[in-house]
Amino acid sequence: LLSADSTQQYLSELDATMRHVVNSLPEDPPGFGVMMRYAMGWADENDQPYNHPTGKRIRPILLLLCAEAAGSDWQTALAAAAAVELLHNFSLIHDDIQDDSPTRHGRPTVWKVWGRANAINAGDALYTLAYCALERLSDSIPADTVIKVWRIFNATTLELTRGQHLDMQFEHQASVTVDDYISMIRGKSAALVAACAQIGSLIASGDDELAARYAEFGLNLGIAFQIRDDILGIWGDPSVTGKSAATDITSRKKSLPILYGLGQSADLQAIYQREPFSEIDVKDAVQALDTVRAREYTQASESAYYQQALAALESANPQGKASQGLMQLVQALFQRTY
Amino acid sequence: LLSADSTQQYLSELDATMRHVVNSLPEDPPGFGVMMRYAMGWADENDQPYNHPTGKRIRPILLLLCAEAAGSDWQTALAAAAAVELLHNFSLIHDDIQDDSPTRHGRPTVWKVWGRANAINAGDALYTLAYCALERLSDSIPADTVIKVWRIFNATTLELTRGQHLDMQFEHQASVTVDDYISMIRGKSAALVAACAQIGSLIASGDDELAARYAEFGLNLGIAFQIRDDILGIWGDPSVTGKSAATDITSRKKSLPILYGLGQSADLQAIYQREPFSEIDVKDAVQALDTVRAREYTQASESAYYQQALAALESANPQGKASQGLMQLVQALFQRTY
Repeated sequence: LLSADSTQQYLSELDATMRHVVNSLPEDPPGFGVMMRYAMGWADENDQPYNHPTGKRIRPILLLLCAEAAGSDWQTALAAAAAVELLHNFSLIHDDIQDDSPTRHGRPTVWKVWGRANAINAGDALYTLAYCALERLSDSIPADTVIKVWRIFNATTLELTRGQHLDMQFEHQASVTVDDYISMIRGKSAALVAACAQIGSLIASGDDELAARYAEFGLNLGIAFQIRDDILGIWGDPSVTGKSAATDITSRKKSLPILYGLGQSADLQAIYQREPFSEIDVKDAVQALDTVRAREYTQASESAYYQQALAALESANPQGKASQGLMQLVQALFQRTY
Repeated sequence: LLSADSTQQYLSELDATMRHVVNSLPEDPPGFGVMMRYAMGWADENDQPYNHPTGKRIRPILLLLCAEAAGSDWQTALAAAAAVELLHNFSLIHDDIQDDSPTRHGRPTVWKVWGRANAINAGDALYTLAYCALERLSDSIPADTVIKVWRIFNATTLELTRGQHLDMQFEHQASVTVDDYISMIRGKSAALVAACAQIGSLIASGDDELAARYAEFGLNLGIAFQIRDDILGIWGDPSVTGKSAATDITSRKKSLPILYGLGQSADLQAIYQREPFSEIDVKDAVQALDTVRAREYTQASESAYYQQALAALESANPQGKASQGLMQLVQALFQRTY
């Protein structure tokens, strides 16, 4: 994602920090810790080494870049970076149970391997490990600042659960507005990205006002990121995204282009009444979206959030080499194809 | 449970603190907060007032008594007391999904009312609210001590998940030893009771060594408490416990008297091969347990843990009126019939 050498260094120390925390779990019973190591991409289901980290670690990298850009060395913020990545992975374990998803990153999900009851518990444990990581911040910054960071972390997790609730509710809700949808992704996706930028800069500066600007940057970046996901979920190239074509239509996901399209196109509404969806129906739906220019609408929305993110970042006046890293990250995410 | 006026005062301020934290949830969407209020016994499933607090609030009362006995006023520790009770209730929401339990405290469980996916999320939110409550400690004690308390809280929650893992594993495990069993209840039940005593006394004194003595008191009290539950699960009077007769035999729970009995009685092993259990089988099982004096064995074990709890409490040298409250609590729990 980022070519800079510094990112590689981030990733290797981040990994070491997260492993240190997760491996603090008692070895007994042996069947316990393996679930968390599996979820992190460090172990296979028999607890044998497996080295394919799940996900791109964008959130902790963002946190470390913001810490550096706000005047700290990034090592100071490592514990917090580990915490947000562990939190993210906890939420995926529970999401996969809630959505009944059988695979993630090309492997069976935790509940598929160990059953739902164990997976709920493994998620709870990984969530706790996120707090264990965060608490280690007290080795590097003043206790008062640690507590401020903790408060942001708590509020963020509540936002995650609120967003998740809305997302599940939308499945059974006849009409979902674009505003409802933006409120949902603010909670489910963007709140954690906002927290990364806010926490990184707060650790570096102790300055609430500066951290609020970074939070604004992260929130808009997170919304734009999710909207890009929505575009790829319909028009993405399967050979690049690794997902099937128009996957969000097949699964009838209420994503932004679809909500917009349903509001603009009686054809699309009619197609969405059909049950089940054939391949022809999926093509008809994409056609109907294209007719009302849903892709252009969604891209304009993505651009608008990126512009707001960039404006907020500029107002935060990031410093040094990390400021270039931040710009590079934003540009790499904008209109990405993967 | 406790006749002292002070306990009533504890309960009313504890309730106010917990409500304050839970009601900090956003009102939107309206269907979200109701699940947490329902779980706490404050609302019915339509979010109408319902005033039957779930459970006896023994844990937060213990925490407040230990704070007072270690030299603080109990109000200083209220945020922590709220946190442990919220944590306990979060764990019940997830336990009920994991155990497929349809009712708790005479009402349908959260997952029965809102479905499993929502209940997982409601549990996650209530868990986060426990941290939100705990963080409020920073209004009343130094930040360094808050972080120490937080560290205990994290370690305790990991113990809860470890104990829960063992408990679920035992269901599919042919042979469970008494040692395995004690290790499981240390995590699943006693760790949180230990944390209450440790946190209360640490908040009051800032003294790690004193807090360790209180932790030892709480750990033994918690183990004894669970063993008493096991006795009541077989020999309890249904009109007092509110549960059906010999409920733990009917559900084939691997509780302490049963594990002991299986180790001592070939008759009981044979009865446990029968599938399904008739009422006669349940009576035969109780008979077999009585023959090997499993009740006496279990009561002796309960007594031994109570004695250790009392010795640890004495070594902590609790002060003032609260020291009497603590003795009263221990005595009320020992050999209880409800």
